[in-house]
Amino acid sequence: MVGAGQLARMTHQAAVDLDVELAVVAGSTGDPAVSAGAPHRLARPADRDALLAATAGAPVVTFDHELVPGWILREMEAAGRMLRPGSGALAFAQDKLHARSELAGAGFPVPAHRPVAGAPQVVTFGDEHGWPVVLKSRSGGYDGRGVIVVGAAGEVPDLAWVEAGEPAWLVEEHLELAAELAAVVARSPSGEVVSYPVVETTQVDGICRHLVVPAGVAASLAGEATTMAVGLAERIGATGICALELFVTTDGRLLVNELALRPHNSGHATIEACVTSQFHNHLRAVLDWPLGATDLVAPAVALVNVITPDADVDPAANLPAALAVRAAAVHLYGKGSRPGRKVGHVTSLAATPAEALATARAAADILLGR
Amino acid sequence: MVGAGQLARMTHQAAVDLDVELAVVAGSTGDPAVSAGAPHRLARPADRDALLAATAGAPVVTFDHELVPGWILREMEAAGRMLRPGSGALAFAQDKLHARSELAGAGFPVPAHRPVAGAPQVVTFGDEHGWPVVLKSRSGGYDGRGVIVVGAAGEVPDLAWVEAGEPAWLVEEHLELAAELAAVVARSPSGEVVSYPVVETTQVDGICRHLVVPAGVAASLAGEATTMAVGLAERIGATGICALELFVTTDGRLLVNELALRPHNSGHATIEACVTSQFHNHLRAVLDWPLGATDLVAPAVALVNVITPDADVDPAANLPAALAVRAAAVHLYGKGSRPGRKVGHVTSLAATPAEALATARAAADILLGR
Repeated sequence: MVGAGQLARMTHQAAVDLDVELAVVAGSTGDPAVSAGAPHRLARPADRDALLAATAGAPVVTFDHELVPGWILREMEAAGRMLRPGSGALAFAQDKLHARSELAGAGFPVPAHRPVAGAPQVVTFGDEHGWPVVLKSRSGGYDGRGVIVVGAAGEVPDLAWVEAGEPAWLVEEHLELAAELAAVVARSPSGEVVSYPVVETTQVDGICRHLVVPAGVAASLAGEATTMAVGLAERIGATGICALELFVTTDGRLLVNELALRPHNSGHATIEACVTSQFHNHLRAVLDWPLGATDLVAPAVALVNVITPDADVDPAANLPAALAVRAAAVHLYGKGSRPGRKVGHVTSLAATPAEALATARAAADILLGR
Repeated sequence: MVGAGQLARMTHQAAVDLDVELAVVAGSTGDPAVSAGAPHRLARPADRDALLAATAGAPVVTFDHELVPGWILREMEAAGRMLRPGSGALAFAQDKLHARSELAGAGFPVPAHRPVAGAPQVVTFGDEHGWPVVLKSRSGGYDGRGVIVVGAAGEVPDLAWVEAGEPAWLVEEHLELAAELAAVVARSPSGEVVSYPVVETTQVDGICRHLVVPAGVAASLAGEATTMAVGLAERIGATGICALELFVTTDGRLLVNELALRPHNSGHATIEACVTSQFHNHLRAVLDWPLGATDLVAPAVALVNVITPDADVDPAANLPAALAVRAAAVHLYGKGSRPGRKVGHVTSLAATPAEALATARAAADILLGR
């Protein structure tokens, strides 16, 4: 697995269950998967030679992030590496313009958008579609990074508009959101697909703060989200976990936001909440093994991310106190605290989403010293 | 954790969730917890000096087996090691005579028994209590080893009856069993105790083949088993998981069989079936942290042990086929096959014990190439 963050850490835990040899390609020996005991090799995501060396001999190569540039992915494939997902599918998670254009072309509903190579094009788009508008960096943005809301024509910031001769930004309509959903599915190379129950996420500054299942939307809408995620995974030939984030607008539209082709934060609750976790199913999918049941084991589930406000908060020191919330399942990733850094999460099962959320939040608050 | 078998392996997985630094003391680098990535030090269970060196600096020392001799445990305590459980409690899991005598003295119901230092004493006991009788080695026996059923006075085998001047064997009444139960509890040094739902185990040749929850006995009897396990954990000052195995006789008696002071095979299903697994609660208990909720998340659970009949059966090779049983959760321990060796287990949640057992058994059978 290329990458050794918390996703690789939790995938390692699943790999131990199945006695699968999962080596991780880490940036540093302090990475969460390395401290969890996954065998590791060191390579930076943009270091072609190091990546080729680190993945030599692996029957299958998968990812815990989207940071390996497309040209390196293609060279890895040319060198015989079995990438799952492959470079073609990964492009949908790496390049927002590519994803928007291709998915729109295939009939998936996406927000109105346009590539922009300068401020005047942003103004034109805003004048046509109304202000504010949203600028999104074409690649590299996540957890709120690379997203800028622009209120009026006079407020367009000065950006590096072009990269390697291509527009580096997209402009999109600003949506009034009723809810945000995520639909996580797993797909194997032989085409088997399983879907997890749709989750409703709550984002603050572009970072998921918490999520609940069932989502507080009509079952038909959740069903539509699942259908969309399954269709999309098939369309792009995804392998492993494919997590689709969706917008529900106040005017009732369900739109594709973005997708990830790896275990995803919106699937972490599956560890406790589902018969088979997303980490187990990611491994099973990339190895082309039968996928596990995704049924919920509780009427409702909530997950609260543990995001440190600054370096002075030490969730590990607060752990014993947090465990007094006995129905909460705490996961710490072995990461140091930094402003806005996801260092763990708390899951809770309960009879209702509100009850589950209250329990998970109680433990998360104690971890954060609140 | 002294020992690096499958118990330490699964405890390591739980330690990763809590970001607890769990180093294991392994006999070899091929041990299941080492291959799962737990940091390790090498020491044999009877090597006093190596154990003292391996545990130097650990704030707490716990165990995945009962193989460290009592005198070494006491020397470790004298040298300042914080053993949890301590040597006094561990003696109850190490010395069947000690456990039988002390527990009988404390009013716990145990089978009729007597230490024996020679064949004539076995014959006397058999003539008093009826034949057959059961010979049990005072220490070191598990999974059916060290247990001999003797049918008649003329069939008493030739044994090493005395060890270090003490009787090395117990003789016990042979019981007609209606069921076997296990009650798993966790106790912290500050006295908090939580109990898991009682399981009904099915043993063949002294090895647990499978278990189900709820146990197929009257709820009052299961309640009595739990009360007994809690009382016993308190009585002996257990720390961490305390697993009590009990006999239900055809004449309606509930008797203490034996106990383990570590995560136990009869608690493995708690990984999927309970809010907090026995491995998490073992860590929480030995660290004197609050214990987690033990509620079941399903109406019924079953676990089937994967026991290889011989070295030719390779469950890892059969894993992809077994995963086609989609509702089963497979755990492989990374151990090579040997006759009668437990190399993994399969858990399943369902509406009824029979349904759960059928699912778990289907996957286990495929793993074993049946």
